[in-house]
Amino acid sequence: MQGTQETTNRPAAYTPTDRTVPTRSAQKASYDKELVHAILDEGYVCHLGFVRDGAPVVLPTLYGRVGETLYVHGSTGSRPLRMTGQADPGLPVCLTVTHVDGLVLARSAFHHSINYRSVVVHGLAYDVTDPQEKLAALDALVDHVVPGRAADSRPANKKELAATAVIRLDLNEVSAKTRTGGVNEEPEDLSLPHWAGVVPLLKGYGTPLPEADLAPGTGLPDYLAVP
Amino acid sequence: MQGTQETTNRPAAYTPTDRTVPTRSAQKASYDKELVHAILDEGYVCHLGFVRDGAPVVLPTLYGRVGETLYVHGSTGSRPLRMTGQADPGLPVCLTVTHVDGLVLARSAFHHSINYRSVVVHGLAYDVTDPQEKLAALDALVDHVVPGRAADSRPANKKELAATAVIRLDLNEVSAKTRTGGVNEEPEDLSLPHWAGVVPLLKGYGTPLPEADLAPGTGLPDYLAVP
Repeated sequence: MQGTQETTNRPAAYTPTDRTVPTRSAQKASYDKELVHAILDEGYVCHLGFVRDGAPVVLPTLYGRVGETLYVHGSTGSRPLRMTGQADPGLPVCLTVTHVDGLVLARSAFHHSINYRSVVVHGLAYDVTDPQEKLAALDALVDHVVPGRAADSRPANKKELAATAVIRLDLNEVSAKTRTGGVNEEPEDLSLPHWAGVVPLLKGYGTPLPEADLAPGTGLPDYLAVP
Repeated sequence: MQGTQETTNRPAAYTPTDRTVPTRSAQKASYDKELVHAILDEGYVCHLGFVRDGAPVVLPTLYGRVGETLYVHGSTGSRPLRMTGQADPGLPVCLTVTHVDGLVLARSAFHHSINYRSVVVHGLAYDVTDPQEKLAALDALVDHVVPGRAADSRPANKKELAATAVIRLDLNEVSAKTRTGGVNEEPEDLSLPHWAGVVPLLKGYGTPLPEADLAPGTGLPDYLAVP
């Protein structure tokens, strides 16, 4: 019973902090874990920010999620991963994922906008040294690109594992921000002869392009079939 | 003749710096201005990085380009714009734009990747105070979302201009990075029974959704017609 209750009472939201409460449009912000997870899981790349010699650096990179932890990987020689390995206690980072869902065209230039969903994560990134955690993180990174793919590929061998660095960033200081719906407009602009509305952006897989030298009998896997 | 020659000799590439030469996969980097402009012009949002209290912050935001200058706008109350106005000489920023073009599925987990095109811009952001430059920047921001749209909307009035801050970032310290093509694979993995290839990602406009209260006779503009 105690265990059940704990599970039920597990917080469904991240606690807002000074860094995760926006100065503007606070009504667009959310700390809901389910929403945050959904936005993160739908992305392909994140934008990872860190500070080098006092200046910001923002790099696009693949990522994966396991529960309340994000993983980023790369060559052991890459800058942010090397810097994380040398940082004590960890490297301050900001990891952001954004989906653009539609273009919002108002009659006034001022009210043009986009419909979007974004997640911003602040925290310290740590080098993953535990071999089991590292393997699980790499599986998560592959499954993040195509769910189910990790089990249908050759796992990393010792040499590949040694050449790959993985860093972790826990989901503690997190916010989502979204804009949905139609156009905001000043009442006096409604009679203007300009088209106004939302242009949705399409997303999806195109036709998969197989390599020419697949092993005989290797067909398209179910997880790539276009629904 | 002198003028003609100067135009012809205008450098077609950005000069690499310590910050724009990647530590890894340097062969994927380019400093070609045409490539950089094309990648920038195709994006909807950039990820703008800056440093606040020693920690990185990465926010998605709209942007526009006029020649060799990028513009970002927002409320005068928003953090990075307020910080730029207070910074002397300017606010160190990193502005990154990324397109994900395809998922690269290798037989080995290690060689999974994505096809992408990205641009990273380092520099100092400055508050735009010249009224003419500010107006041109706002037009560029609207035209960046949908080319041709600025001329078909009501320009910002005095009140809206006063509520909007615009910052500029010149394209000096810039690099593009791209991955295209098929799968890299270890020779000994070629006989493995896993599907390998590239899954292109589709992009495009969906059917425009007009507001219910358009002025009578307002049809879909040509610049939104799906080709």
